[in-house]
Amino acid sequence: MEGGGQTRRQETRGPDLAGPDLAANVVPVVMAGGFGTRLWPLSTPDRPKQFLTEFQGRSLFQQATERALRLAPAERVLVMTSASLASQARAQAPDVPAENLIPEPLRRDTGPAVILAALVAAGRWPGAVMAVFPSDHFIGSEEAFVETVAAAVARAVEGGLGTIGIPPTSPATGFGYLELGADAEPLATQPVAAFVEKPDRARAEAYLAGGRHLWNSGIFVWRPEVLLEAARRHLPDTVAALEGLANHVGRDTFAAEARAAFERIAADSVDYGIMEKAEDVWCVPAAFEWDDVGGWEAAARLLPADDAGNRAYGNVVLEGTDGCIVLGEEDRPVAVAGMADCIIIQGPAGTLVCPRAEADRIKPLVQRILDGRQA
Amino acid sequence: MEGGGQTRRQETRGPDLAGPDLAANVVPVVMAGGFGTRLWPLSTPDRPKQFLTEFQGRSLFQQATERALRLAPAERVLVMTSASLASQARAQAPDVPAENLIPEPLRRDTGPAVILAALVAAGRWPGAVMAVFPSDHFIGSEEAFVETVAAAVARAVEGGLGTIGIPPTSPATGFGYLELGADAEPLATQPVAAFVEKPDRARAEAYLAGGRHLWNSGIFVWRPEVLLEAARRHLPDTVAALEGLANHVGRDTFAAEARAAFERIAADSVDYGIMEKAEDVWCVPAAFEWDDVGGWEAAARLLPADDAGNRAYGNVVLEGTDGCIVLGEEDRPVAVAGMADCIIIQGPAGTLVCPRAEADRIKPLVQRILDGRQA
Repeated sequence: MEGGGQTRRQETRGPDLAGPDLAANVVPVVMAGGFGTRLWPLSTPDRPKQFLTEFQGRSLFQQATERALRLAPAERVLVMTSASLASQARAQAPDVPAENLIPEPLRRDTGPAVILAALVAAGRWPGAVMAVFPSDHFIGSEEAFVETVAAAVARAVEGGLGTIGIPPTSPATGFGYLELGADAEPLATQPVAAFVEKPDRARAEAYLAGGRHLWNSGIFVWRPEVLLEAARRHLPDTVAALEGLANHVGRDTFAAEARAAFERIAADSVDYGIMEKAEDVWCVPAAFEWDDVGGWEAAARLLPADDAGNRAYGNVVLEGTDGCIVLGEEDRPVAVAGMADCIIIQGPAGTLVCPRAEADRIKPLVQRILDGRQA
Repeated sequence: MEGGGQTRRQETRGPDLAGPDLAANVVPVVMAGGFGTRLWPLSTPDRPKQFLTEFQGRSLFQQATERALRLAPAERVLVMTSASLASQARAQAPDVPAENLIPEPLRRDTGPAVILAALVAAGRWPGAVMAVFPSDHFIGSEEAFVETVAAAVARAVEGGLGTIGIPPTSPATGFGYLELGADAEPLATQPVAAFVEKPDRARAEAYLAGGRHLWNSGIFVWRPEVLLEAARRHLPDTVAALEGLANHVGRDTFAAEARAAFERIAADSVDYGIMEKAEDVWCVPAAFEWDDVGGWEAAARLLPADDAGNRAYGNVVLEGTDGCIVLGEEDRPVAVAGMADCIIIQGPAGTLVCPRAEADRIKPLVQRILDGRQA
């Protein structure tokens, strides 16, 4: 298969991990099952953030897949997604073989997904190192990304459960943090002393000043056997339920078997379910720029600003307006006059209007709408 | 035919003109060809203001037709509309016979439309009095409306060209005014001294204080022959082009004949083309409440206000928001948080956001969008 991703890869190819440069075989696992609605009304449960192509022409998922293809050939890239999103994932990652795209039948968070991926990887590629990537984050430099993952892969061969930490650039209160024993240096691996829950503002500022706390990126690197050993200890029922399922991946029997298995297991995140309880967890501080695109402010940073500080996408007509984030659709323009510093988003699911300074009101507001729909 | 309009008419029936109470046979002419886009993005050239059902369950056109049915049986109600809007007019006025619904093939303003209506009325109902009503205005009381029109019909039997003037309730600068020779009293007919163009604010305030200037409602009452005599003097080419067309109304030949005729004539409004130049123009000051619904402020007055002063329609979710006018669609909610005193309208054509205090920016903004579409 010769898709856009392949072409781009050849153009920008630097020293990567897909060839024989590194002894380890890397198995990139792209996590694409997220249902986030923080970019409502552009994103919805049926069209989550990672598949949106509005911001840079290529979706965050497509970008994540391209990065994965810097690490391994398409035949060794796994994509974990939910059954309802599988067709979008397939369409946006045509290079990835069908048997590598694993649709989860029920929402069980990231823990079961990485366990299933580890079971598949251990069976298909003995001796490989797994690298797990969320597909709904923005990563600035592909080169620095490959360099960071290479450092983690080299360390993972020796054992333990690896994380990639992001040196914070602001006192963010929306992320979990990784606490290290000493000051973080990009690419310099060291043990994780503790996982820290989302801090309050004062603590986040102390973390930022201190230099020993990193944002938890959700990127993990480990040998599948090491992850499975930890999972057998901390989520034994989940491993037991999924163990037989790996052989059905890519076969007609998968959907029914997966449903039966997922119905028996609990939802657990990798962090809470395994990493926070595990021993020998280490961290490679990232050398790349990172953003979780967790709201409209972050998403807007991916759009160019005009002279009045507006960031707009789509069919948008502005008049005497500044500092606004505005999205319109091709057939339905958004017309804004005399507004300042507001978020004005028209998407397939509706329209959102809110001052940028009050963006924390958006989440409960959107939840009211989504709850109303389910009711 | 037994439609909702008929039923309603019976319920609210007062002394009206449809029966033998008055000697004159009234021919109500409902003008429904307007393309106004001042309520964009809810209204569009394809779905103009008079056909919108969002505000009171029944459109302004439906309300206008109901009022017409207070004046005459459906067989004597004429509806002038444009060819592209004819199906909407037909659907919303099922009681009006097909041969009474006259679709104009090209936009030529109101002058040609009333001339054609007068030709039809003169041919079908000799001795009748025509009463011409815009269908995109709001009228408060049907009883007072019938009373006002009855006064004008009685006067029209004697001759001259009648207008209905609205006693102003604000120093509006968006309307033309009728200047009378003496103070206006509701229902007391007197000659029109002059038609006055849209005034500036100072003059509008003087008019409001003076008591001798009325808003020009666009409601006209006259015998068809009197109108045609004035039209032959002031728009002779238009009358000549339309004279043969009246016989084709309601026949298969109408569309082609109408196109040929309308292509030969110029656009002229009743006011500029005939009334301002005519002699013996008189006015009945209205006894009813009137609003031209010429923008979102006026439209919003037709919606109930919540405790925070918001006026909303459709699928709208508000949080910490006050004084806003918000419209959403059934399948596409509009979510608003932390906003004050803004107009936020999501319609089939797109979305509009503007502070209420800057509503005068809307017209040029919308024009940019509509121009862009035609380009």
